[in-house]
Amino acid sequence: MPKISHERKAERRAEIVAGARRCFAREGYEGATVARLEAEIGLSRGAIFNYFESKADLFLAVVEQTSLEYTEIWLDRGFRALLDEIVRADADWLAVQLEAIRRFRTDNEFKRRAQEQDRRLAETRPDRMERLRAQGLRDDVPLETVGIFLGIVANGLALRVTVADPLPDLDELFELVQTGVAPRRPR
Amino acid sequence: MPKISHERKAERRAEIVAGARRCFAREGYEGATVARLEAEIGLSRGAIFNYFESKADLFLAVVEQTSLEYTEIWLDRGFRALLDEIVRADADWLAVQLEAIRRFRTDNEFKRRAQEQDRRLAETRPDRMERLRAQGLRDDVPLETVGIFLGIVANGLALRVTVADPLPDLDELFELVQTGVAPRRPR
Repeated sequence: MPKISHERKAERRAEIVAGARRCFAREGYEGATVARLEAEIGLSRGAIFNYFESKADLFLAVVEQTSLEYTEIWLDRGFRALLDEIVRADADWLAVQLEAIRRFRTDNEFKRRAQEQDRRLAETRPDRMERLRAQGLRDDVPLETVGIFLGIVANGLALRVTVADPLPDLDELFELVQTGVAPRRPR
Repeated sequence: MPKISHERKAERRAEIVAGARRCFAREGYEGATVARLEAEIGLSRGAIFNYFESKADLFLAVVEQTSLEYTEIWLDRGFRALLDEIVRADADWLAVQLEAIRRFRTDNEFKRRAQEQDRRLAETRPDRMERLRAQGLRDDVPLETVGIFLGIVANGLALRVTVADPLPDLDELFELVQTGVAPRRPR
């Protein structure tokens, strides 16, 4: 077997994740058969499952990648930029992620893998909190809660995109959020 | 057939909705077969489908009832009370509702019925906005956006309950929300 460089491996893994996201978004988790995943990704099952142990593993990698992309936008470009990205998100993929939540609650393989993922993510948490702190938020409420609040708003907006309810004016929405999290002026 | 009073009919309809909610929460939409719905509700399919045209119709009635209950808590007892109720909600039922969002997007009967429901709900909207206005919110941002913001926070928190992520301190969360929507002091 030819040797593939570390870089080439990472690229290929990213291609697989991107193709799988398109396939899951269109077909749903159940509908995304291995044959459809092969067709969309453009690689054989042998090649795909060289990188991922199972379809569940691949699905969770797509969920994790999506979450990382949005977290990076938030921490790098700010919460207003995140709101813009959310309303431009692929609602089909959002809906498939929501559909899968029930599977995370009831399917043991999903549950176990999601917990592993949570543990991995927890390692990078101090760095994320540090970057959040640098955004100049109020400090009379624990930063942890401010972060959870902003995450709740982001996820609530994503849910709204998914059910196709009318979207708010994002400047107005941001004004409400920003007032909530900005440092308090002395009384 | 014996005549049933209007009141008795409303009671029976409510019993069916409550039993169906338990069944859908436990089994999921697909898993809630007519036989399982009969067993949980304690009525025959004839009796159940005398009140609802189809399983989709029954499911949407449960979704609508849930939404009405939470809206009533919000408008009657305030947003802080709503947060309390959300963290006490049945996460299994929340997960089944999220799972069904994809069906709303892809299944034409679901789509059509959901649109009918939206139209019915729209009729009661002026009353809801009036009751929201009475809660004394800031008026430099349109009340519509303030309402959407609060709904986004409620749904984002519900999503968090469903995925079993650690919950924030609700007093701290409410403090952030409240700062965001309270009338602005003059500068």
